[in-house]
Amino acid sequence: MRNVSLDVAVQDLDLHEDRFFDGDPTIRRIARSIFEETRDLPIVSPHGHVDPRPLAQNTPFPEPAALMILPDHYILRMLYSLGIPLARLGIEPLRGEDFEQDPRKIWQLLGDHFHYFCGTPTAIWLNYQLHQVFGVRSKLDGSSAQMIYDELREKLQSPEFLPRALFERFNIELLATTDAATDSLENHAAIRSSGWRARVIPTFRPDALLQLASPTWLSELEKLGETHGSPINDFVGFLRAVEGRRTYFRSMGATATDHGVEEPYTERLPNEDAARLFDMARAGKAATADQRAFEAHMLMEMARMSCEDGLVMQLHAGALRDHNRRLFESYGANIGADIPRATEFTQNLRALLNAHGNDPRLQLILFTLDESTYSRELAPLAGHYPAVRLGPAWWFHESIEGMTRYRQHTTETAGIYNTAGFNDDARSFCSIPARHDLSRRIDANWLAGLVARHIIDEADARSMARALAYDLAKDAYRLRASESVRQPSARS
Amino acid sequence: MRNVSLDVAVQDLDLHEDRFFDGDPTIRRIARSIFEETRDLPIVSPHGHVDPRPLAQNTPFPEPAALMILPDHYILRMLYSLGIPLARLGIEPLRGEDFEQDPRKIWQLLGDHFHYFCGTPTAIWLNYQLHQVFGVRSKLDGSSAQMIYDELREKLQSPEFLPRALFERFNIELLATTDAATDSLENHAAIRSSGWRARVIPTFRPDALLQLASPTWLSELEKLGETHGSPINDFVGFLRAVEGRRTYFRSMGATATDHGVEEPYTERLPNEDAARLFDMARAGKAATADQRAFEAHMLMEMARMSCEDGLVMQLHAGALRDHNRRLFESYGANIGADIPRATEFTQNLRALLNAHGNDPRLQLILFTLDESTYSRELAPLAGHYPAVRLGPAWWFHESIEGMTRYRQHTTETAGIYNTAGFNDDARSFCSIPARHDLSRRIDANWLAGLVARHIIDEADARSMARALAYDLAKDAYRLRASESVRQPSARS
Amino acid sequence: MRNVSLDVAVQDLDLHEDRFFDGDPTIRRIARSIFEETRDLPIVSPHGHVDPRPLAQNTPFPEPAALMILPDHYILRMLYSLGIPLARLGIEPLRGEDFEQDPRKIWQLLGDHFHYFCGTPTAIWLNYQLHQVFGVRSKLDGSSAQMIYDELREKLQSPEFLPRALFERFNIELLATTDAATDSLENHAAIRSSGWRARVIPTFRPDALLQLASPTWLSELEKLGETHGSPINDFVGFLRAVEGRRTYFRSMGATATDHGVEEPYTERLPNEDAARLFDMARAGKAATADQRAFEAHMLMEMARMSCEDGLVMQLHAGALRDHNRRLFESYGANIGADIPRATEFTQNLRALLNAHGNDPRLQLILFTLDESTYSRELAPLAGHYPAVRLGPAWWFHESIEGMTRYRQHTTETAGIYNTAGFNDDARSFCSIPARHDLSRRIDANWLAGLVARHIIDEADARSMARALAYDLAKDAYRLRASESVRQPSARS
Repeated sequence: MRNVSLDVAVQDLDLHEDRFFDGDPTIRRIARSIFEETRDLPIVSPHGHVDPRPLAQNTPFPEPAALMILPDHYILRMLYSLGIPLARLGIEPLRGEDFEQDPRKIWQLLGDHFHYFCGTPTAIWLNYQLHQVFGVRSKLDGSSAQMIYDELREKLQSPEFLPRALFERFNIELLATTDAATDSLENHAAIRSSGWRARVIPTFRPDALLQLASPTWLSELEKLGETHGSPINDFVGFLRAVEGRRTYFRSMGATATDHGVEEPYTERLPNEDAARLFDMARAGKAATADQRAFEAHMLMEMARMSCEDGLVMQLHAGALRDHNRRLFESYGANIGADIPRATEFTQNLRALLNAHGNDPRLQLILFTLDESTYSRELAPLAGHYPAVRLGPAWWFHESIEGMTRYRQHTTETAGIYNTAGFNDDARSFCSIPARHDLSRRIDANWLAGLVARHIIDEADARSMARALAYDLAKDAYRLRASESVRQPSARS
Repeated sequence: MRNVSLDVAVQDLDLHEDRFFDGDPTIRRIARSIFEETRDLPIVSPHGHVDPRPLAQNTPFPEPAALMILPDHYILRMLYSLGIPLARLGIEPLRGEDFEQDPRKIWQLLGDHFHYFCGTPTAIWLNYQLHQVFGVRSKLDGSSAQMIYDELREKLQSPEFLPRALFERFNIELLATTDAATDSLENHAAIRSSGWRARVIPTFRPDALLQLASPTWLSELEKLGETHGSPINDFVGFLRAVEGRRTYFRSMGATATDHGVEEPYTERLPNEDAARLFDMARAGKAATADQRAFEAHMLMEMARMSCEDGLVMQLHAGALRDHNRRLFESYGANIGADIPRATEFTQNLRALLNAHGNDPRLQLILFTLDESTYSRELAPLAGHYPAVRLGPAWWFHESIEGMTRYRQHTTETAGIYNTAGFNDDARSFCSIPARHDLSRRIDANWLAGLVARHIIDEADARSMARALAYDLAKDAYRLRASESVRQPSARS
Repeated sequence: MRNVSLDVAVQDLDLHEDRFFDGDPTIRRIARSIFEETRDLPIVSPHGHVDPRPLAQNTPFPEPAALMILPDHYILRMLYSLGIPLARLGIEPLRGEDFEQDPRKIWQLLGDHFHYFCGTPTAIWLNYQLHQVFGVRSKLDGSSAQMIYDELREKLQSPEFLPRALFERFNIELLATTDAATDSLENHAAIRSSGWRARVIPTFRPDALLQLASPTWLSELEKLGETHGSPINDFVGFLRAVEGRRTYFRSMGATATDHGVEEPYTERLPNEDAARLFDMARAGKAATADQRAFEAHMLMEMARMSCEDGLVMQLHAGALRDHNRRLFESYGANIGADIPRATEFTQNLRALLNAHGNDPRLQLILFTLDESTYSRELAPLAGHYPAVRLGPAWWFHESIEGMTRYRQHTTETAGIYNTAGFNDDARSFCSIPARHDLSRRIDANWLAGLVARHIIDEADARSMARALAYDLAKDAYRLRASESVRQPSARS
């Protein structure tokens, strides 16, 4: 679209010390000073999608394309939208068609099209990784791509770039992964038994077990039976098995569950109706409406269990998954075709909040992709119910403007102490520090704006900055009670 | 959540002269100059919820907690959301459970947790009251709370802090209260007959009479019969009694009605259907759907009556009342558990606007809690229909960011002359000047931003500032025709 | 509402060189420098509603009111909303009532009320036209209106102000009109045969043919038969006739279609069902629900045809047309009573995108009046589907804040290269350069803000500015392949 420069001279990559702060000298000066308060705090990462295996094995990461492009749906979806087929980006089609297997060519595609990402968080995160994690000093483009590839590839083989070395260099105090309810958590077990004193904990995500109408539900149920130790024959047994898995996750350090739903509908069914839906599903006869009712009921059950076992409950609502059926059929799930929908919380959550929203044992963290709900529904809910915290700006909104809007739309109603701090939500391990750097800068800049307008004073701003960068995440996810994975959480 | 400082040294409370203006020196200079135009204008308060009794009796206000905490649902909901039970905040449970009766302890709770309000309008309003109304010079926190309590308590006993003295010191030109349709307006009558020359007028709010399905509807109907002077036996009699109350309110100085609805649905029913719904309700058989249809019909009737008697019609739409049933059962209505919903105006108001929207006799002021409707529906409606004015940023949105977004989302489509000026919407009397100060500063700052970008010139900005702070409220609420409560409005 | 000044001294009209740029000196300096890159680029106007007749005839434009007020629904709706009847503004009622026929009086009304437009794009566009197009140096108000009228009227008679002279002075490289599917395109033909080497192309807009339930549908169908050369007797014939018209439009230079719908619902019907709906409509029996299903099916057909013939498909969704029935009955359609509605894209477009969204032959440009869909639905769709581009901020949102919000809500998810550049959407010919000037300034200022915060560098900003002002429009509307109207487009 834009002509590629014929001048192949490589340009310098530079990260400005005051990046992402307002140009206004007053705000910039204050932002810089507030950021000093948080820039060196340890990273608490209570929600994300990093694969724990590299940390369990501690063998070198794969080459750059597999590390930084293939797990990053932000990169894949942008390049796909601009006309590059996924197979050319190294994604393997399900039916055996050709796909690119030369990682250098995939990396070159990223370099050739990197200007498409101008103004997006993807560019910011990648530039941070190149510069700060890998020490690259050339701007990524078509002419520099191979040279940068070589540099990354070489470094990734060195001991300083082994997974655990990076984990420590990134100053990660805690990393939570997201794991299917039926996951064996073998990598978490391997980390714990290895003697490495890092805190890497699982998160209980039972979505697949709730999707009655899915073609994979029966096999998920079977897996549950296997991990549970006996087959699941009825709804009561199902609930017991789910409770059993929660207990196991807690024993492995988990402090939270996570639930992804298209709409956050909650409603308790009479027990016999829930049992009947379960039986229909076992007979392969559950329809979409049945799944909706069952999920609504199970969210009630999950809140009830959280009251009992103390696991923090996360609810990520509003993504219509696999919108692009052709891509889903060609490549399977999770290749970037999830599209948000308008989302309703006020009425949908009423049943759950009326049942458990006043219970101090419940901590419910809400996430949205529909920014119109920030000021209209979520901040008022979080600013009223003791059980509700507002999760940080999610997914597309984990961006400069997105995080700024989040603060501007929620703080005046809910304050910051009803929010849950920052989640990096990373899939790509090396993007973790990039995301915390960006988030801390944006919050410092937002607070500096409040100070400059005399809405808060600088002492308050410093306390708030520390809370946003560190304390709130630890509180919201109940991470304080067990500073080591060796002990069960005091809450549970 | 944040450690309370062990250092009990009290910090100074300071209100910066340029507070809430942008840090940018150009904008700040212009904002200051525009604010000079409006800072000393009298306060016109055409919509709020202040209790008229203290003004009628002119005896000292109660102690500080009863004056500043108990009527303030912003404070109550935030403290409740952070885990403090309402009973500890002095709210009396319906079923006789214990509750805190020592106002000093309640005040101390506010002091201990005042940092939770950092960045919220509540903190801004409270700091203004402490500093400007009461002359306090210490920052409120746990260590200063008792000292400040003493200072406030003492001042509240002095003649300078009697209700009418404050009313005059606040330079209030007009104060409208909000009153049930069946209210006797005895306090308004007492004010008028006292010889005090202040303008305190009622607003006609008949919501309770429209909620057919409510358990209290029959008793409301009975009250209507009593104030009307004869029992209400049918729908025609009901309409006549409502018209009679409107006439009475007008005779007491009212220039407006107010209607709170969950959705702003309007639709005229055939007369016999409306009558049938009314009869069903009298027989205790009205359902939620009946109420919805009846409210839609009655909004049409209210618009018709407004065309006839000239009362300005306010419509506050979009709050789901008493979302938290457990709290409602324990403490009753109006303790902060109202949560906004997505709200639709374009289709819902079509019937009303097609019937009366082109009629110059109707003035309809619309309020929303759903900011996505500002640019999508409300500004286009106000920028087209002669009868429609857009009410100011309401409730959660009466805040720095909220009021700024309101201007940014509505002005380019509707201009400012289709808006209704500022409402303080206060429940707590002493917050009135705090809210006008904030609003005038935010508007001055917004206008200064337009001047700095050469969108308007400084002369226009000055005229607009005066309109926003004073003229528009007087025009929109038809307050000009009767500058004294002694005469009936020229419009009516 | 505001007192008209008694001082009749005329004020100077001045356009500040740095207008619309932030006051902050850093951003202003960068914005100025970026704007230098785009201010003199030719105007590409791929979507608008200018009448091609004046360009075909090249006789003088009418007097100022007919040129600048009557076709401008922004002006008409604002003045109407503030209480001025349309008949006084020169709009002729359908039933023969009186209306103002003295253009001087109409112009005077605009002057008298011009302060109502403070802070709106209308004021900005009009001031640009007065100052830059007509050389007026007095601010328009009640006292200057007649003097300015005289000045404009005289200039409009001079050769320098003939339509083609202005077209060339405005440096318009391409102008697309919007034309009914049944339009003869005689003015376009006249322009081409005149030897004038300007590129003025039609756009195929078949809305009227899709509105089965409209009282005018049968006559539209008849017109289609006439232009097609034979009557349309069945659905297959209808599709063929539509395809025939598309071929004709392409032969006249068209590169795009345009579709206006209340909701962007798409769903393929079985062929026999579509045919049955068509037959019912021919029998005058189609209901609103039938029209909805038929429009949904026809959007699928239009996308299919676009894949085949290469015409870019524009979709303008979300306006409820002729909301004000009384005005519609008095004055007909299109007098400013269209009001936006909440709009859903994610589910509504799924059928169309599953059928054609991965097809590189389709270019689908989406427009919304519901800004909440920018970040929630449209940017994610444009940032995934190869066929989707996001059209620019539309209608009410073609404003300083509106265009800024558009960039802030879409760029981080979709980048700028998934957008379609700028549309002026003008009805009033002389407003074209005013709108491009404003848009280029706003984009320059937005980019300068990114540079000042070190999100992008200045070199990237320059490329992006050129793309936004020029390249993206040419790419999105497939205007590059045929730089002259003399040749058929290479794509088709």
